[in-house]
Amino acid sequence: MTQLNLKPFQTTEIGHPTIQRAAPKLVATTGSDKLKDSLAEIVQATVKDGMTISFHHHFRNGDFVFNMVMRLIIDQGIKNLTLAPSSLTGIMNDLVIEAIEAGTVTNITSSGMRGKLGEFVSAGHLANPVIFRSHGGRARAIEEGAIKIDVAFLGVPNADRLGNANGMNGDAVFGSLGYALMDAQYANKVVLLTDNIVPYPNTPASIKQTQVDYVVKVDQVGDPDKIGSGATRFTTDPKELKIAKTVNEVITKSPYFKEDFSFQTGSGGAALAVTRYLRQAMLDHNIKASFALGGITKPTTDLLKEGLVRKIMDVQDFDRGAAESMHTNANQQEIDASWYADPYNKGAMVDQLDVVILSALEIDTKFNVNVMSGSDGVIRGAIGGHQDAATAKMTIISAPLVRGRLATVVPDVTTVVTPGDSIDVLVTEVGIAINPKRQDLIAALENVPGIPVFTIEELQQKAAAIVGNAQPIEYTDKTVALIEYRDGTIIDAIKQVKD
Amino acid sequence: MTQLNLKPFQTTEIGHPTIQRAAPKLVATTGSDKLKDSLAEIVQATVKDGMTISFHHHFRNGDFVFNMVMRLIIDQGIKNLTLAPSSLTGIMNDLVIEAIEAGTVTNITSSGMRGKLGEFVSAGHLANPVIFRSHGGRARAIEEGAIKIDVAFLGVPNADRLGNANGMNGDAVFGSLGYALMDAQYANKVVLLTDNIVPYPNTPASIKQTQVDYVVKVDQVGDPDKIGSGATRFTTDPKELKIAKTVNEVITKSPYFKEDFSFQTGSGGAALAVTRYLRQAMLDHNIKASFALGGITKPTTDLLKEGLVRKIMDVQDFDRGAAESMHTNANQQEIDASWYADPYNKGAMVDQLDVVILSALEIDTKFNVNVMSGSDGVIRGAIGGHQDAATAKMTIISAPLVRGRLATVVPDVTTVVTPGDSIDVLVTEVGIAINPKRQDLIAALENVPGIPVFTIEELQQKAAAIVGNAQPIEYTDKTVALIEYRDGTIIDAIKQVKD
Repeated sequence: MTQLNLKPFQTTEIGHPTIQRAAPKLVATTGSDKLKDSLAEIVQATVKDGMTISFHHHFRNGDFVFNMVMRLIIDQGIKNLTLAPSSLTGIMNDLVIEAIEAGTVTNITSSGMRGKLGEFVSAGHLANPVIFRSHGGRARAIEEGAIKIDVAFLGVPNADRLGNANGMNGDAVFGSLGYALMDAQYANKVVLLTDNIVPYPNTPASIKQTQVDYVVKVDQVGDPDKIGSGATRFTTDPKELKIAKTVNEVITKSPYFKEDFSFQTGSGGAALAVTRYLRQAMLDHNIKASFALGGITKPTTDLLKEGLVRKIMDVQDFDRGAAESMHTNANQQEIDASWYADPYNKGAMVDQLDVVILSALEIDTKFNVNVMSGSDGVIRGAIGGHQDAATAKMTIISAPLVRGRLATVVPDVTTVVTPGDSIDVLVTEVGIAINPKRQDLIAALENVPGIPVFTIEELQQKAAAIVGNAQPIEYTDKTVALIEYRDGTIIDAIKQVKD
Repeated sequence: MTQLNLKPFQTTEIGHPTIQRAAPKLVATTGSDKLKDSLAEIVQATVKDGMTISFHHHFRNGDFVFNMVMRLIIDQGIKNLTLAPSSLTGIMNDLVIEAIEAGTVTNITSSGMRGKLGEFVSAGHLANPVIFRSHGGRARAIEEGAIKIDVAFLGVPNADRLGNANGMNGDAVFGSLGYALMDAQYANKVVLLTDNIVPYPNTPASIKQTQVDYVVKVDQVGDPDKIGSGATRFTTDPKELKIAKTVNEVITKSPYFKEDFSFQTGSGGAALAVTRYLRQAMLDHNIKASFALGGITKPTTDLLKEGLVRKIMDVQDFDRGAAESMHTNANQQEIDASWYADPYNKGAMVDQLDVVILSALEIDTKFNVNVMSGSDGVIRGAIGGHQDAATAKMTIISAPLVRGRLATVVPDVTTVVTPGDSIDVLVTEVGIAINPKRQDLIAALENVPGIPVFTIEELQQKAAAIVGNAQPIEYTDKTVALIEYRDGTIIDAIKQVKD
């Protein structure tokens, strides 16, 4: 079972703790008998009551692996599992709910959950609180042994008979295996599922034969059309475009916009628009970036190709274009989630980041950000790399002032995910607010033409003036989820919603 | 101090032991303060009495790093260190001897030692027995915690300010960082030394910033002219050519010479000639190899370029041509020493090997091989990957019947390094001998024109007829070195030579 760490959040400063790394327990083999046809037999041979099992979410809503494996686990009557995937996507929701109802799954740790699963957990149906961790926080928890994975089931678009695999060839390509590399390295047992057995030895080997116990041939690991879909559309929404333009202004007028700067823009529609504006600004000012980080999209790999970005450090690709670029461009380096964002190693990429653009469901007057629960208190989000990348020198939250009848800028967020101390600028369609602790940024940005600067309280009042104040949510006493900060302390809890 | 494992060798069968992997203890950092000018200060800050320190030997006799670091360690008066490099090359000998005399080094584990250091240790001057381990055995010992490295000093031809580094760019390039990757992953403290600080982030990152504590800028890490020199000359010696031709005949007439076969040829003059003959045979028979393994030379990378070999799995490059090929050919995959040969992981490359050609100082009538001590009992060799690669389906020892006045084929080897059970064929200039346990190979090879087949006893008698029988060596009771088999059992001991 996943180990709980119930120290309360105190500071965004990580300091220099001494960490004894965890390591897997393995059974040595020459590997000549790894290739298997029967997933049912491998599930039976590896998964026992009370274990921690894991999956990755690189297939996103095109994932066939999770449901295949979970179907067998439920049907085999296995109980009391801790489910520890890198995240849970919508296509997994039905089976997770069924597994909870069957007593198969009694603990979950994930980056997020959405849709009916979020509602189900918010209604108190899981025995123990979910632990939500950022991508960097999950890496940390695995590396220090707080998450001890017994069996990892990892889908890959190619593998050889010994388990050398990557995310770049085959039908169901997704590019970087960044999150799954943690499981491959630290799980006691690693089961690869693939629909594409390739000649031995398969290279490049992101996952290595030295890490893999079984390679199971299945019909199809994923739906290529749904792997890259969803978040990566290019916006035409005037409000989003305005926000994107303002974000770009904030970046280019900040002291960080200079030769060799670095950035993470993410994958929302506005984020893609930011990348487009940023490209033009880089051309106009003859500035090149040292690296782009994070979940990668084609607009970012285009910058690499164009020479505007020297390196891409790639933990995840959001579209097929980005995945293909990783295959062909040696300057797009695959990185694992530890390298991306584990605060307890010898230097994560996020700690080198100049500028990051992040989203928010809510942001409050302390600059605390919620990306996990709706304003009705129901779980419907994911931390992703939010807390992690907020360590950048300038962390920008890009969000509309209101969404429909709901305020985004609020007096207090429903759930604190990323502490206000790590947020520097909020960009909305009506103007920006700068964290008062960043007087340097206030000085740099207060006189930019066309960008009104408000206090965060003023923005909150503007939002309230449009949509009014929300009714307080009614909760029971039951805790349904805990939010870990990236260092493993607990930054907030989510209670069961009443009714 | 290095932990001793004194179980005696029993079998070449590895079986399926359960292994709890070791893991480093680290101090977390964002990495902003890693780049240092003063090696002396870093040595002082990291190395304490009684620690285990390590180095790699990829610079071979062009290495400047070892002496730089060891000079400071001796001068700082540090005592009782265990020296655990991947191997010791001749350029390190003087300083190792000085360190032993100063009480700075009291334990050594290495793949080998030669020259005056071998004589010095054989004369009983080191406090405790050296433990000789194969490259795979060292990886195993590190991974299971028998070698616990406190500080690794790793020279690299390039690194960025956070420690991302590879062996492929810069003046002192050597290609694969294979052996050093173990130290980077498992040492508690990792100190990189480089003469070439490159822009951040440096890719490809064979060693990653997440693993590195300090990056120290030095004048020069190695002498480019001496890194690739030595073993990789191309022979013109008629006896070596005859042996090489016979080795090629043995391979091509064996059942293993077929599409997708795999091989490791090594780096001796005869080995390079084998590669040349093998190339022609592959062309003649329209056969392509799935992979070539081991220490890689330009003749092998030429086969890759030509398409005769599909992949090269590269733990070490013996010349600049091979190093350059790794940089430009994506099918030349860098592998660490664990992937190469740790018997206690989930499948090492050596276990997939069809054919390997290995050398011998001595081979006896039980097919036991000595690559460690001279016939005078003095240490003058290295295990390298000898024991590891001998797990191939067909292990060929290529060796002259006699060398000068010394027999190579002997009644009993001076030191057993690789057990006869894993040796299949001995090739000499007068003919071959096949291990009687391989009746299949005897059947396949007994009627090849121009290749006389003898018993190993017959070859031993032929050698004795030429050079006579050697005088027995006189030893004291003091054990100066232990030879570990790849699984950590002790296969032989070397005693102090009398006088």
